[in-house]
Amino acid sequence: MANTDCVGVRVFSLNCWGIRYLSKHCSQRYQMIGQMLCKEQHDIVLLQEVWSEKDFLYLKTKLASTHPHSHYFKSGVIGSGLAILSKHRIHDTFLYRYSLNGYPYMAHHGDWFGGKAVGMAVLNLAGLTANVYVTHLHAEYSREKDSYLSHRVVQAWELQQFIRHTSTGADVVIVGGDLNMHPQDLGCRLLMSYTGLRDSYVETAKFDGCENGMTLIADNPFINKNELIPFEKGIRIDYILFKGSSKASVNCDFMSTTKGSVPGHALPYSDHEALTAELRLESHIPAQTGSDKTQDTPAEKLAELVDTLTEARTEVKVGLHCAERMRYTAARTGVMGLALLFLELAIAAVPCFALGAEQPFPRISFYLLAALCFAILLTTFLLYIFYTMELKSLQGAEDQMRLAVGSLQEKLRGFPVAQPHNVPLRSPEGQQPSALDPEE
Amino acid sequence: MANTDCVGVRVFSLNCWGIRYLSKHCSQRYQMIGQMLCKEQHDIVLLQEVWSEKDFLYLKTKLASTHPHSHYFKSGVIGSGLAILSKHRIHDTFLYRYSLNGYPYMAHHGDWFGGKAVGMAVLNLAGLTANVYVTHLHAEYSREKDSYLSHRVVQAWELQQFIRHTSTGADVVIVGGDLNMHPQDLGCRLLMSYTGLRDSYVETAKFDGCENGMTLIADNPFINKNELIPFEKGIRIDYILFKGSSKASVNCDFMSTTKGSVPGHALPYSDHEALTAELRLESHIPAQTGSDKTQDTPAEKLAELVDTLTEARTEVKVGLHCAERMRYTAARTGVMGLALLFLELAIAAVPCFALGAEQPFPRISFYLLAALCFAILLTTFLLYIFYTMELKSLQGAEDQMRLAVGSLQEKLRGFPVAQPHNVPLRSPEGQQPSALDPEE
Repeated sequence: MANTDCVGVRVFSLNCWGIRYLSKHCSQRYQMIGQMLCKEQHDIVLLQEVWSEKDFLYLKTKLASTHPHSHYFKSGVIGSGLAILSKHRIHDTFLYRYSLNGYPYMAHHGDWFGGKAVGMAVLNLAGLTANVYVTHLHAEYSREKDSYLSHRVVQAWELQQFIRHTSTGADVVIVGGDLNMHPQDLGCRLLMSYTGLRDSYVETAKFDGCENGMTLIADNPFINKNELIPFEKGIRIDYILFKGSSKASVNCDFMSTTKGSVPGHALPYSDHEALTAELRLESHIPAQTGSDKTQDTPAEKLAELVDTLTEARTEVKVGLHCAERMRYTAARTGVMGLALLFLELAIAAVPCFALGAEQPFPRISFYLLAALCFAILLTTFLLYIFYTMELKSLQGAEDQMRLAVGSLQEKLRGFPVAQPHNVPLRSPEGQQPSALDPEE
Repeated sequence: MANTDCVGVRVFSLNCWGIRYLSKHCSQRYQMIGQMLCKEQHDIVLLQEVWSEKDFLYLKTKLASTHPHSHYFKSGVIGSGLAILSKHRIHDTFLYRYSLNGYPYMAHHGDWFGGKAVGMAVLNLAGLTANVYVTHLHAEYSREKDSYLSHRVVQAWELQQFIRHTSTGADVVIVGGDLNMHPQDLGCRLLMSYTGLRDSYVETAKFDGCENGMTLIADNPFINKNELIPFEKGIRIDYILFKGSSKASVNCDFMSTTKGSVPGHALPYSDHEALTAELRLESHIPAQTGSDKTQDTPAEKLAELVDTLTEARTEVKVGLHCAERMRYTAARTGVMGLALLFLELAIAAVPCFALGAEQPFPRISFYLLAALCFAILLTTFLLYIFYTMELKSLQGAEDQMRLAVGSLQEKLRGFPVAQPHNVPLRSPEGQQPSALDPEE
């Protein structure tokens, strides 16, 4: 350890409980969260259950000066709800959608529609490559009769596979999120023992927060105390985990959780408690920008890659427009089916009031037409959901490509001005600014 | 390069076109493929479109002595169709399902039901960690009006992401499969330029096969020549790609494809041509078993991991039984709905033949009942598909866990006999042999 650099990294994680119009005081809480994040200036902010992209954009705008880098992971029908905001540049992102995630007909549980996943962002922290993961696993609605246990175990299995296989090149691994598992639960053990990740609550030198590090507590006014039984005081299901490597060691100096209410406010930030971990990274290698796998790539190759990526983005955008049009058509056909149904009901109402028994009611046509309307409504509803999922996936890919183009252009700027013949075209002031601007 | 070890690796890739009852001469071709693989004894066999698990099991049994290690990747409604057979132990596997894969209502194209994905297997080749990938991208049904282009571009994007992020710790990367893209297509360029993978057809020192390395040729009797227009002679859409690292360099000494017909047989192996690449791996590090990330883990930790994994497998099996029961219930309800429909039609047929106009036909009840039957049929059909997908995912996770347990037990056997107190319980001769046997 002759060459040791030390750097502190503050990581924040919160399940925001952000279901618009359903979660209590949603916009008010987002305002509070935004204010707090602005003030606290964590290095990395990992959020879950940011179900509405509008709320993410609100936070992104609010934190534009303190956290200029961010990514919102899109998946499923509603979205993955996962977001990352960072002080440090995000070089790369990747999303893994869990293969199992509840049942679409359990709509009141809603997990299936959320498209639960694990998002990854590659950051450079003081010359170290840090792979940062944010995830949210399927909720446990009943501890005694947990019909989603196998789904959650498979999610934990896939989570550890994803982290293990994608982090072999990383110097530092940081994972934050709502695992919906107690520390001793099978999925948690599977994750920790396979990956070698360490729990910041267990490892921290100093702790300030709820008893036993609980993150779902009875004192939180949004919590239904009956649902916590037999854990009267609360449970610990949110985590910040970390791991070092041969190149860097990581330790947790301080960890804290909110304790239900927020000083100076009438409300807590969410129904979950927020976690903050202060990690200390000690690099065992000389300071360098070793993180970057495309670092040694010549400018010409990079420019070619930007070109290819821009082309790919265009193709994906064409697909996006196509999917949007299809979804619009499905919605319009659905509305027409609904109008037809109402019209039919209105016509059916007429003989009852006006014609009486004079004219026989055309029962057969009535039922046939009603069946047709229902078939149209069902089909268009399924298609609408399907196209929404397609849209989310296309948007997600497009977002990731935009971020990648931005990162590559950053690198290109670092090269000497005398670049190959075709590079100026792809500079940010080039002829296709709208397609190239990473923040478009 | 003071310490150079050299090892040859023969890689085989084939799209088997294995749709039971639909693909021509399916079982006969599998017999031929099995015979050839037995004789040729490639190190790594990568297969696509093995749609039926029975056909995979046939090959697995047939190649048990030459290729003792294998994995079949499960996904989607039908499966991913991806399989790997290997002479060398498979230490780990991982599957990434593409987020976009066509449309469920385009049933005649069938891609959506296949659950297209990329499978990964971690092998140890002469002390080098080799990440081997097998994949199959969405088909191109029309080059002029390719409505799946955006889906295929997103698949190529996700493929490069998956390979790039999971292979940072690998010494050697080998990719085989049917990319359904011409070499100059956008997705191919995206994949190659981002990952730095090299094309064995382009890189090979010696080539024997179809003109321009084509893998879908007009001379193949299973090919409809009209579908190849405007590429009269054929196209190249199947690939074996490779990449070295700082620890090892990889070169291709020889590459070959089949040329439609197979000498001594009336039929070719498939509608695609088979690819074989002879790669030469030159290790720049002293020979060691450096591949193994759990190598330094103490026996106690390994045993604990085996325990946790066994518990997880049990949970997943419980979920499997549950999903099987639900699927059975859906199927039974569907059959009852069908029976009800037939019964109704039979009853409806009676007044036409026997009662005539004497008794009025109960039209309303008839239509209501028919609508009910159709609703039952549609719902149970959708549920059946959903539960099949759930089953595939659960089975896939269980398979991967079994393989992981086997690999861990292998490692445990390497430890001295004096093991910690609880290890003997988990030895392969332990008390739970059925749950622990990796080949169960």
